[in-house]
Amino acid sequence: MTTKTTIDPKLAQWLDANDARVRDQLFEFLRIPSVSARSEHKGDVRAAAQWLHAQCARIGMQVETLETAGHPIVLAEWRQAPKGAPTVLVYGHYDVQPAEPLELWTSPAFEPTIRDGKIFARGSVDDKGQLWLHIAALEAHLATRGTLPVNVIVLAEGEEEVGSEHLAEFVKAHRERLKCDAVVISDSTMFAPGIPSILSSLRGLAYLQVDVTGPNSDLHSGMYGGAVVNPATALARIVASFHDADGRIAIEGFHDKVRPFPDAVRAGLRELPFDEREFMEHLDVQALGGEPGYSTLERLWHRPTCEVNGMLSGYTGEGAKTVLPGQAMLKVSCRLVPDQDPKEIAKLVERHVLKHAPKGVTVKVTELHGGHAWRAELDGPLYDAASRALEAAFGRTPVITGEGGSIPVVNDFATILGAPVLLVGFGLPGENAHAPDEWISVENLEKGMRAMACLWDEISKQQM
Amino acid sequence: MTTKTTIDPKLAQWLDANDARVRDQLFEFLRIPSVSARSEHKGDVRAAAQWLHAQCARIGMQVETLETAGHPIVLAEWRQAPKGAPTVLVYGHYDVQPAEPLELWTSPAFEPTIRDGKIFARGSVDDKGQLWLHIAALEAHLATRGTLPVNVIVLAEGEEEVGSEHLAEFVKAHRERLKCDAVVISDSTMFAPGIPSILSSLRGLAYLQVDVTGPNSDLHSGMYGGAVVNPATALARIVASFHDADGRIAIEGFHDKVRPFPDAVRAGLRELPFDEREFMEHLDVQALGGEPGYSTLERLWHRPTCEVNGMLSGYTGEGAKTVLPGQAMLKVSCRLVPDQDPKEIAKLVERHVLKHAPKGVTVKVTELHGGHAWRAELDGPLYDAASRALEAAFGRTPVITGEGGSIPVVNDFATILGAPVLLVGFGLPGENAHAPDEWISVENLEKGMRAMACLWDEISKQQM
Repeated sequence: MTTKTTIDPKLAQWLDANDARVRDQLFEFLRIPSVSARSEHKGDVRAAAQWLHAQCARIGMQVETLETAGHPIVLAEWRQAPKGAPTVLVYGHYDVQPAEPLELWTSPAFEPTIRDGKIFARGSVDDKGQLWLHIAALEAHLATRGTLPVNVIVLAEGEEEVGSEHLAEFVKAHRERLKCDAVVISDSTMFAPGIPSILSSLRGLAYLQVDVTGPNSDLHSGMYGGAVVNPATALARIVASFHDADGRIAIEGFHDKVRPFPDAVRAGLRELPFDEREFMEHLDVQALGGEPGYSTLERLWHRPTCEVNGMLSGYTGEGAKTVLPGQAMLKVSCRLVPDQDPKEIAKLVERHVLKHAPKGVTVKVTELHGGHAWRAELDGPLYDAASRALEAAFGRTPVITGEGGSIPVVNDFATILGAPVLLVGFGLPGENAHAPDEWISVENLEKGMRAMACLWDEISKQQM
Repeated sequence: MTTKTTIDPKLAQWLDANDARVRDQLFEFLRIPSVSARSEHKGDVRAAAQWLHAQCARIGMQVETLETAGHPIVLAEWRQAPKGAPTVLVYGHYDVQPAEPLELWTSPAFEPTIRDGKIFARGSVDDKGQLWLHIAALEAHLATRGTLPVNVIVLAEGEEEVGSEHLAEFVKAHRERLKCDAVVISDSTMFAPGIPSILSSLRGLAYLQVDVTGPNSDLHSGMYGGAVVNPATALARIVASFHDADGRIAIEGFHDKVRPFPDAVRAGLRELPFDEREFMEHLDVQALGGEPGYSTLERLWHRPTCEVNGMLSGYTGEGAKTVLPGQAMLKVSCRLVPDQDPKEIAKLVERHVLKHAPKGVTVKVTELHGGHAWRAELDGPLYDAASRALEAAFGRTPVITGEGGSIPVVNDFATILGAPVLLVGFGLPGENAHAPDEWISVENLEKGMRAMACLWDEISKQQM
């Protein structure tokens, strides 16, 4: 018999009483244009770090702002939990995407504005709002009880939008200090409004460039066509060989290390309110495609892919130019699932490409980028606690979602710290994270605080 | 028993005596920068027409400079041949390609300079030098005999390098006046030094653009990859379907109207001093390709092709961008042989493309450009005459060559005037017709004049 979890009324009461003030403070945070990609905003990025530093100190944490070769990292700690209590690391980022094109914003990007229950501002959902709700949840505990049931480390970086270039190095260098029992990250979206979500998988990546060289220059297609191997045709035939006629990836050895996803995951996906017609309408396509035997969500989240990202050869301007191209270039990337290894997959793709290259052209394969897939162990106490906390705040059990893309820091934390990672986000589809009119729902912001405040209590009850 | 043809000694003597003056006059012609593509040279193009007009008048022809919507056409006529003598139309062009990049010229583009037996100048071989050798050959007759054995029309246009836009219209409008028994064009190359050549075939063209549209914008390849039909992959698979595994064109119906080329042509090709190793070295390739069962020259001159001219999709800049492209574009053209019809072939390609397009993308096929192939009837008296005249000047019988590209005016003349066309050129491989350091061999210029002077006599002996 399970008892329905509820949030401690004292925490709830404090949050109710402080919602307006907490939101006003988030607005202060959002007004700082901490665009990490633009050197002219370097001072603003630092100002955002200082603001966050001051807030963490205000609620009663020990705070340090630590320099990196790029933007600084704010590290706030509270380590006075009862002996034996677990330690939780909360990761977030205080930098934001550039706001351009500014003319497409309904209200100014750095002047938060509420419309239709949404806070519009650059960084509202990605990730200042989601980072701030954690600080508010921590404050609720410290303000009402003077203590927290778990030790907490808040690590906020200022380079997430430019590739988290110095984060892994930082985590490695501070491995001992950052040692923890769980990592909690709120930088993702819920499946749909009202449906709390735990993001349980990310796909990895093996990104390659293929350069096919034929004759030493572009030739006249009349004078040479028919007898010289055309690099564009050769490349097209290579690309066509990546999949069989049914859409299965046909690269030898590609599937060898694919770990099947659990039946429970498949069952869970079936229960998600996913509307395929809506998905197609949104993309303006008449049909979907992909690997036979899998549903769309399975294809998107749990199956590996091999997708062309770019292709270039010969004359691509207006009208007709009768050129037989001297070269052809392909960008291709595979999304990976556990336990595919990015380096190994890159080698398999290279071998396949070379095997399918005809005589008369030379082919060069370059590995550009790679990363491992990640899949949560959903059976652990961390997920039980999260599930109860989310149910307490949202009134329903969370759904388990996947994500077809990659979030490299997740693997960094999991690998370097050896702790389970909980991805629990409060964004929503259509939130415009990297586009004009970015927003976070006020309701999700408030429920998110309550869920996270509850999470610390629930985690403290678990054997981590 | 055939008697070896020789050039009339009086003509030869006159040409010997006048070589230097004839060359000096060519240099005058070459100094006029008649670049038809550049509006700032409009006056120079007209000046070249006026210069040519004056020269034709000087040698004793009736000349008119006729306006078109573009650059003018110089039409010179001499119609006093004995009753029943054939009429020959000589076509050439007095406009030239742009000379840029000027810094790559060893000597100035519009200051003719002789080095190593070559006259270097823009237009030297394409086509002022080759047009001028005809005028010199006509002058040799008129100066020594006061007459010509055939009626002659010289038609020189100023828009060949910009597509001969107004020529067909002009020929149609003056069909009666231009009525002739043969058209002679010197605007091509010999197979090799010392080997006079008759160009007996040109391939036609059907040029298309294929636009594949998938989702309504570029997507994140992580978030959407695996379930959305990738337009680049779809396009690559379409391209791969154009040929079978052996390199034969696999477009249904494509070969239906292909007229086999005569065995004599195949035999002739075998005798040409074609060095496949040299051809590959020149292109920097380790192997050639193409349709099985045919030699390289057969593939280049006498078999139809389907070649990619350009291909573009997604991200093609530096590094890795994880985009699933919304669109993919292909430029593809088929070189055609008799009796393939460009419109019909375009339809077949379109049908093939649509048939091979997967669900989930929309495909649009646009016909950009087309033209018929041309093949000379080598059995006629015109070719016999040409063969003898070339042998008289070069000391050996000509070889019969083909050309993989198209010269649209050839078909225009053949179709509108209904006369056989003789393509007899005196350029050489490596002549840089459209590049810096364009040249014509002094020897070929002089032998060309003698061959053409001899040609009028030989033609007059034939029953045309």
